[in-house]
Amino acid sequence: MPVQVNGGRLWRRLMAMAAIGATANGGCNRQALTDEDKAGRDLFLSWTRSAGCAISIDEMGNIFARRAGSDDRLPPVLMGSHLDTQPTGGKFDGVYGVLAGLEVIETLNDCGLTTNHPLEVAVWTNEEGARFNPAMIGSGVFAGVFSVEEAYALTDKAGHSLGSELERIGYRGTHPCRTRPLKAAFEVHIEQGPILESAGVTIGRVTGVQGMRWYDVALTGETVHAGPTPMDRRRDVFRALPDIISGVYALAAAYGEGARATFGDIAVSPGVRNTVPANLCLAVDLRHPNQATLDAMDRQFRSLVNDAADKARCPASVTEVWRSPAVRFNGDCLKSIADAAHRLGYETLDMVSGAGHDSVYLARVAPTAMIFIPCAGGISHNEAEDAAPEHLTAGANVLLHAVLDQAIRR
Amino acid sequence: MPVQVNGGRLWRRLMAMAAIGATANGGCNRQALTDEDKAGRDLFLSWTRSAGCAISIDEMGNIFARRAGSDDRLPPVLMGSHLDTQPTGGKFDGVYGVLAGLEVIETLNDCGLTTNHPLEVAVWTNEEGARFNPAMIGSGVFAGVFSVEEAYALTDKAGHSLGSELERIGYRGTHPCRTRPLKAAFEVHIEQGPILESAGVTIGRVTGVQGMRWYDVALTGETVHAGPTPMDRRRDVFRALPDIISGVYALAAAYGEGARATFGDIAVSPGVRNTVPANLCLAVDLRHPNQATLDAMDRQFRSLVNDAADKARCPASVTEVWRSPAVRFNGDCLKSIADAAHRLGYETLDMVSGAGHDSVYLARVAPTAMIFIPCAGGISHNEAEDAAPEHLTAGANVLLHAVLDQAIRR
Repeated sequence: MPVQVNGGRLWRRLMAMAAIGATANGGCNRQALTDEDKAGRDLFLSWTRSAGCAISIDEMGNIFARRAGSDDRLPPVLMGSHLDTQPTGGKFDGVYGVLAGLEVIETLNDCGLTTNHPLEVAVWTNEEGARFNPAMIGSGVFAGVFSVEEAYALTDKAGHSLGSELERIGYRGTHPCRTRPLKAAFEVHIEQGPILESAGVTIGRVTGVQGMRWYDVALTGETVHAGPTPMDRRRDVFRALPDIISGVYALAAAYGEGARATFGDIAVSPGVRNTVPANLCLAVDLRHPNQATLDAMDRQFRSLVNDAADKARCPASVTEVWRSPAVRFNGDCLKSIADAAHRLGYETLDMVSGAGHDSVYLARVAPTAMIFIPCAGGISHNEAEDAAPEHLTAGANVLLHAVLDQAIRR
Repeated sequence: MPVQVNGGRLWRRLMAMAAIGATANGGCNRQALTDEDKAGRDLFLSWTRSAGCAISIDEMGNIFARRAGSDDRLPPVLMGSHLDTQPTGGKFDGVYGVLAGLEVIETLNDCGLTTNHPLEVAVWTNEEGARFNPAMIGSGVFAGVFSVEEAYALTDKAGHSLGSELERIGYRGTHPCRTRPLKAAFEVHIEQGPILESAGVTIGRVTGVQGMRWYDVALTGETVHAGPTPMDRRRDVFRALPDIISGVYALAAAYGEGARATFGDIAVSPGVRNTVPANLCLAVDLRHPNQATLDAMDRQFRSLVNDAADKARCPASVTEVWRSPAVRFNGDCLKSIADAAHRLGYETLDMVSGAGHDSVYLARVAPTAMIFIPCAGGISHNEAEDAAPEHLTAGANVLLHAVLDQAIRR
């Protein structure tokens, strides 16, 4: 029987981490670079030190916990994900990938097995993008997508900068944040969608990630008093909303199952009950697994916003605030995952991730792939997020054997 | 020639008051019980003291500047309005009614004329409702619509209470805030709509005020991740919005020219770009001059919200947060206004106010009427709010003669 992880230890650590920033409804609020994030990082470091890992922290606050290889000059095999959460997030998103990586190292410690290649568990800073926009900034700087200066200058809603918050919690490291030779990179994660659960399959082999575009739509009308101004004399930003919202949902429907459209936030100003607002800002998120299709969606989206704005006599601007191209993961890493699942007797399903992950950026600089496990009801970014202990153990076992496949081969 | 106000003095005082809380775009931000409101009140008091008025301040911070009558036991004729503004408000809304009242007193001082009845200029606290909801709270407590305790407990978005802010700026007076015998009450105001300007008429005789209802619509869906969750698996609060918005505008259109529908504010939570929001709150303002029609609008509004919510599988609640019944002003006061305008040679137009005013509540406890003058483009609740000096002078002259008509008669 192949070597297996200690699922009980993994579960206990997941629950210990979930206690940091725990919310009343059973979720977590451990947003990037808050006091809670610091406490989570501190706990992770205490575990990795006990496991004999060498720690390095880079200037973006990314943590690397390293277990030496028998030939320590070889490029490491990387595991990991993130410890930050959404404001009303769950216990598993990100955390599972980090603690499963640690569990792989502990399992190898337990059975006294040394790999040729060193192993590293990475904790990437601000994956969620909930506090500092854009998301995946730690892995993004590592992969050369953003500069350290750009990242430091990001501010949260209260005006605090990412750089000053890194400093404040004591996680602004000295190592340069940049790529280096990596043998392979694996990230195990809850699916955050309902497909595996519906199919009754334990292991998702993630062949790629949807392309994503984030937009701010700004509409400009005229502030007038809600009472005296006749309806036909107004330039009311709300007049454009029905066409924009219905149009965007129709667009998603037209491009099939893989398409996604989400309005995550909206605000108007002055935001006073008896005043027609002059300004409206709407956050839009469009996704599709196929890059050319997403480009077509982008064009139609801009056009329908402009049509709705013209009709309402409220000029619109559409600003793309972030994009992530559709990604295809590495074939050799995907083969290691398939072989590992087969060896362990788990059924697998090939799928495309609809969510962004640090692996999107890692795939630019290293052979990368992801492993998904089911989560209850497909619910994530929600305090009710849940995953079964046996699935968490299964995913960690597949990670272990995929890593061994890469780390023992030269 | 009948006695006339000093239009230059009125204009200079309007501009001096507008300098307090002046915004970069030429408007005013002098919200209720802020430091700016205090500075505005202080300036008003300095002018009224110079004019020889006796000042009293009640427990709601309402200010009464009194000029004695020849029989000072007679009930006073009240003039006035408010000094607070919207966050991006103008120079004239409210302020004009207060300073025109002061100008009436100064004019009588100048010509040494004493009225039988005493005169008072009132400054009502928190008319706008922009900082503390509901609006018209100072006049509302005076008229017995709200208790002082209810008013004190109101909080702004930062959590400061009206009572503590009154105390902080030093305007929590000792006089009980309650009604007393009043001979008549007049409020002169910019129209805040385009009707007088379009008609080329200087004086609007306001025969009543539209009925108004304020609602909070709350929708509850489910927080899920924007990427992995298929579109048809979501309970997305934004799905209900197009039907609600289009439905409300159709409702306003169906009830003719007098109907108004406004969405002044909207918010979603958690308000994160890559998360389908679970909660949406929408502020709705419905108005109509006819009470029965407004009741019908109310029923249809609730029904269309529930239909839209059902369709989106997002339960809705509709909470009425404030209402103001349709008001008809006093015939005798309206006759005084018509006679005054006729004596001065101004054309008048009878109209219904689409905006709420302190006079709505005063009309419950005293013979009350309002005078409107044109404002540029009908624009109000906007930094661009503007009014012509000759119209401001004309309105103050009509106020003067309407007041004289009431204050000299026994």
